[in-house]
Amino acid sequence: MGLKLPITQAATVADIVAALGGELRGDPQTPVAGIAALDSATKSDISFLANPKYQSQLESTLAGTVILSASADQQARDDITKIVVPDPYHYYARLSQWWKLRYSRNADEPNVHPTASVHPEATVHESARVGPFCAIDAGAQIGADTVLHARVAVGKDCVIGARCILHPGAVIGADGFGFASHEGHWVKIEQLGAVVIGDDVEIGANTCVDRGALSNTVIEDGVKLDNLIQIGHNVRIGKHTAMAGCAGVAGSAVIGARCTVGGGAVVLGHLSIADDVHVSAASVVTRSIRKPGHYTGMFPIDDNGSWERNAAALKQLADLRGRIRVLEDLLKRES
Amino acid sequence: MGLKLPITQAATVADIVAALGGELRGDPQTPVAGIAALDSATKSDISFLANPKYQSQLESTLAGTVILSASADQQARDDITKIVVPDPYHYYARLSQWWKLRYSRNADEPNVHPTASVHPEATVHESARVGPFCAIDAGAQIGADTVLHARVAVGKDCVIGARCILHPGAVIGADGFGFASHEGHWVKIEQLGAVVIGDDVEIGANTCVDRGALSNTVIEDGVKLDNLIQIGHNVRIGKHTAMAGCAGVAGSAVIGARCTVGGGAVVLGHLSIADDVHVSAASVVTRSIRKPGHYTGMFPIDDNGSWERNAAALKQLADLRGRIRVLEDLLKRES
Amino acid sequence: MGLKLPITQAATVADIVAALGGELRGDPQTPVAGIAALDSATKSDISFLANPKYQSQLESTLAGTVILSASADQQARDDITKIVVPDPYHYYARLSQWWKLRYSRNADEPNVHPTASVHPEATVHESARVGPFCAIDAGAQIGADTVLHARVAVGKDCVIGARCILHPGAVIGADGFGFASHEGHWVKIEQLGAVVIGDDVEIGANTCVDRGALSNTVIEDGVKLDNLIQIGHNVRIGKHTAMAGCAGVAGSAVIGARCTVGGGAVVLGHLSIADDVHVSAASVVTRSIRKPGHYTGMFPIDDNGSWERNAAALKQLADLRGRIRVLEDLLKRES
Repeated sequence: MGLKLPITQAATVADIVAALGGELRGDPQTPVAGIAALDSATKSDISFLANPKYQSQLESTLAGTVILSASADQQARDDITKIVVPDPYHYYARLSQWWKLRYSRNADEPNVHPTASVHPEATVHESARVGPFCAIDAGAQIGADTVLHARVAVGKDCVIGARCILHPGAVIGADGFGFASHEGHWVKIEQLGAVVIGDDVEIGANTCVDRGALSNTVIEDGVKLDNLIQIGHNVRIGKHTAMAGCAGVAGSAVIGARCTVGGGAVVLGHLSIADDVHVSAASVVTRSIRKPGHYTGMFPIDDNGSWERNAAALKQLADLRGRIRVLEDLLKRES
Repeated sequence: MGLKLPITQAATVADIVAALGGELRGDPQTPVAGIAALDSATKSDISFLANPKYQSQLESTLAGTVILSASADQQARDDITKIVVPDPYHYYARLSQWWKLRYSRNADEPNVHPTASVHPEATVHESARVGPFCAIDAGAQIGADTVLHARVAVGKDCVIGARCILHPGAVIGADGFGFASHEGHWVKIEQLGAVVIGDDVEIGANTCVDRGALSNTVIEDGVKLDNLIQIGHNVRIGKHTAMAGCAGVAGSAVIGARCTVGGGAVVLGHLSIADDVHVSAASVVTRSIRKPGHYTGMFPIDDNGSWERNAAALKQLADLRGRIRVLEDLLKRES
Repeated sequence: MGLKLPITQAATVADIVAALGGELRGDPQTPVAGIAALDSATKSDISFLANPKYQSQLESTLAGTVILSASADQQARDDITKIVVPDPYHYYARLSQWWKLRYSRNADEPNVHPTASVHPEATVHESARVGPFCAIDAGAQIGADTVLHARVAVGKDCVIGARCILHPGAVIGADGFGFASHEGHWVKIEQLGAVVIGDDVEIGANTCVDRGALSNTVIEDGVKLDNLIQIGHNVRIGKHTAMAGCAGVAGSAVIGARCTVGGGAVVLGHLSIADDVHVSAASVVTRSIRKPGHYTGMFPIDDNGSWERNAAALKQLADLRGRIRVLEDLLKRES
């Protein structure tokens, strides 16, 4: 439960501010034994108010300490110890990192787990960590401070930058899906490219990034991919783009920087998506998107009976449009 | 093929009824060498009639023995041996378990496979089974009679109850997908919670259940998750809910008890779904569902030409609605 | 980058034509140090023109050698060395295979990687290759020249034919998803069938093929499955059918030969799809398809504001249809 410490081992607000900054208002010795949301925190927890719509929770929270902005602080109760910062959510992210480093279970782990299989021709930086049952093939390179959790596969000649995190089951550099159709069967096109992953990239559990056919598949710096995502061959994903779980990007698509792609969304092959495009969950990108913005395509959910009626009508929609035109023409003629 | 025994090793109907109950009508010595569907069974097979719409298959089946209800038996042929029970499908499920235990390949398997990696600070119940290449991290707990097939990853401090089954490649306790946006890049929010899985839960191959950010991700007793499902951080799934393959549940969603979620369906984050809600395959839940019932949202498939025409018209639908209003107003004024 | 050789180790066009055939037009000693697309090739690369719509790239390409058809050659520049063949894309596929065999990193790999777990009752053909951390269970059979990359799981009694390729994380023979509902909980139906995979099948990374309930799940010869695909129990997929990433096929569906299924598409259970059916990406097959053809069902993507308006109108579509009828009746009566 959120790494709650025994109260005797609690940090103080002063410890936190000393490490992470912020303006302390209240008792520096307020104990902090855990991090929790405003509505579930107890007296020994620190919480945060990042979204003004939860301002009312400041009234009722039991948290002993709250991270908040200067403007939110003006409306806050006096009996709470506060850390006032410009961006409370960013401060909470940094606090979570500090907390994990200081208090979480950090067994004394080896650099490369003894069960991992690292090919003699692969290069693993001495500061990288490689978990149990990882399989790193010939010519692969793993950068500084990168962490491969259990059971990550990195194929031949694939390159992973510094400070990346790859979660269990991720597969980097399986063959792209390429075949030539010939006399009713499929002839394999060997995938001669590799995968190149930049720095500060996170790749989720069981996510797959395929190697390129003739050039490389490229994941630029700072990209964050959630679990169970499929990235096809020759794809390029621009810096700091984030994609949620179960999304799929087909071969040779090029996605810009700072995009977000919602869960289960699909980007078809050979398309381009501009920088700063946001695709809603479960939407299918069927054409290139040249303009930044927010794009959606998803059938609205409804009770099943209503859905059945509307879906049936949808299959006649082009006809209905024609019938509207006929009515318009009739009325125009009459008037 | 369904574990067909040599006829010399066949069970008898009497063996089955002795073990599982039911009213035997016919020759107790009828041999049973396999289990098969009515339309593919042979004389030495046992079959079952669970759905009245297949009643006519009772006429033509070659099965020597059939499990059926009392009412179905009234219309059944006399030359078939029967086991009459209140719920034939449930009886078939129990029979499949009895059959597997008795006849299937049960190599003498060790409690923990020698290739598995179990952290010294993890706890595996002595009756649990852990397959090849499983990676169980510090603080994890595996309950009594739980089976982890090959290559299951269980992260730090995650708890799995009794009598669970985890299929190959399942990943329990990878980090949830949480970042704070800061000056154009993403700052990781450490995921300090864990995953808590109840008793009698089944988790499919390559399915992922992420650890919580500040509290735990919770899968309650009796939940059944198919393959390649993504469960985000802080999600709670209620008792006896079942989800089909490729479904995804985004962070902090709360799903009730006894729900079913169809294949490829997506539940967006921070939503609540009541008990006894049924979501059709490939539907996207974009708002909380407070009432039990059956919900659907999915574009009906059509031949591609018809789809193109209707999809084009759909992009003008709000306009078409406006044009209908204009026509209605015109006609109202005229009349 | 596409396995570019140092120019001193380059092949010649004559080497390629000697191995793969085709009519050479130009200097047989033209060096070939890499394979590249027309728009990114350099003088020492070989490229190909497979699609007439890229004919104009023949004007501007820097490639020293191009594979093309006789008709395309009539419009081609004279300063390029050509290999004229009936099917340039098929020739490129064969060239990629020749190239990989000849030049790619082929570390001297063992037949069965020492870290793999092969049950003593499993059968692996002596020419098959089994990668690190593969788990092959009792009774499984792996055919001649089949390659299992890292971390493939093959369950009890599952059979894989000759010349197959299974990518990392693939799971063959996990339990199908079968339960009987009984007094508010789910009773497991043991999955007594297995998986039978034909020859020349390719299975993508983290793709799952479940074992059958009473009969086998069958993948016929020449089928190609991309990554992260779910194939339910008792499914049959016909020869030379190809499915793109993240697709899902629910239990007992039967898919014909030479079909294609786009990325993220879903086929519901117990349906039949005829031979030569093409399902677009992200479409949901909700009924059997008896006629060859191209089928689609997918909400067209739009800017979010337009989508919101049209999606709202869609929930009234059956009503709108009714209102159109009323208008038509009114006008009919008036005229």
